[in-house]
Amino acid sequence: MTTPRTGLILVVSAPSGGGKSSLCQRLLNWSPNLIYSVSCTTRSPRGGEQNGRDYFFLTRSDFEAKITGGEFLEYAEYNGNYYGTPRSFVEEQLTAGKDVLLDVEVQGAGQLMKRIRTGRFAYPNSLVTIFLMPPSRELLETRLRRRGTDSEETICKRLALADCEMARWTEYDYVIVSGKLDDDFAQGKAIVIAEKCRAARLPKETKVWQQNEL
Amino acid sequence: MTTPRTGLILVVSAPSGGGKSSLCQRLLNWSPNLIYSVSCTTRSPRGGEQNGRDYFFLTRSDFEAKITGGEFLEYAEYNGNYYGTPRSFVEEQLTAGKDVLLDVEVQGAGQLMKRIRTGRFAYPNSLVTIFLMPPSRELLETRLRRRGTDSEETICKRLALADCEMARWTEYDYVIVSGKLDDDFAQGKAIVIAEKCRAARLPKETKVWQQNEL
Repeated sequence: MTTPRTGLILVVSAPSGGGKSSLCQRLLNWSPNLIYSVSCTTRSPRGGEQNGRDYFFLTRSDFEAKITGGEFLEYAEYNGNYYGTPRSFVEEQLTAGKDVLLDVEVQGAGQLMKRIRTGRFAYPNSLVTIFLMPPSRELLETRLRRRGTDSEETICKRLALADCEMARWTEYDYVIVSGKLDDDFAQGKAIVIAEKCRAARLPKETKVWQQNEL
Repeated sequence: MTTPRTGLILVVSAPSGGGKSSLCQRLLNWSPNLIYSVSCTTRSPRGGEQNGRDYFFLTRSDFEAKITGGEFLEYAEYNGNYYGTPRSFVEEQLTAGKDVLLDVEVQGAGQLMKRIRTGRFAYPNSLVTIFLMPPSRELLETRLRRRGTDSEETICKRLALADCEMARWTEYDYVIVSGKLDDDFAQGKAIVIAEKCRAARLPKETKVWQQNEL
């Protein structure tokens, strides 16, 4: 008989340009037990995007019915389209013994933490939140400019948003000050391994002496 | 200007025969920032033992004066001799930006956790506790017998004590189910790295945008 430790809901947030996607990808490549949480959206699929892999594509009325039914851990509207994290997908993965990775903006993460911590979710102890912090405003600005994809106006808007988002690092469990991707990854990986060791994740009734395996 | 994260008081406990010393040694060899907490004792030095390296050797009256003065984080009496963890040594190391490793029995660890968590210590947020759990009673018994150093009576006493100690794993932050030393070490190391990333260890007033380095 085994006593599985409960799975993690791993939330990674960062101001845009913070290197979040690269860190998430490294974590997913590293752990076969870590599953990417696929979001729901009302926007149309772009070339090559697959339903259930990139997004769950929903009609507006289906999405709104799910909001009413409390089926999202968090959701938001950007540019006239809804985006949200379906709780059923996350719950199914946790039930199957998996850890779930959520790549969520700071505002969505705030909603999600509140929802999970106030008990409106079956796995209140699963939540682990990481804030990936750019080492300085200058560096974030440099990174945004280096992309070469945004207009001056967009860059200014992103930096203003980043100022606001940066103030919310205290709401997270962990802060990784982003540097080289290898270093960020080493810290992210350590957080996952350590969190799996938390005494709080072993069932209290564990009769350790009777187990062959934990 | 740098904003150092506060140091850790890393407590490692295990029932005897649990492989604690090997894990502690690996952690000390790995991190130059991790300092072994030297205990005080009233027993006489054994061959080769050095004052200040292996123990701080004290007279009984000096030790008792320190108890009265609240100078121990924990202390106990075994076989007519006192053993204790001096708070000044731990505080000095933390002030110097070091992490401190305490190899402490389960009873001493309980005392220490209570003392630190009830605020009778300058660094209440520094404490990180790890319980190294043998995977089964059979395996612990096998390990104790394999040593070949203890009488049958001593082995029975140790196992009875272990039963009692094992019940206290829920008091710890982390549980490592001991297996191969490499695996135990990987988890211990991950716990140290992750704990250094805790948001709670960054000063709240951190004005991240003004820092070049955190």
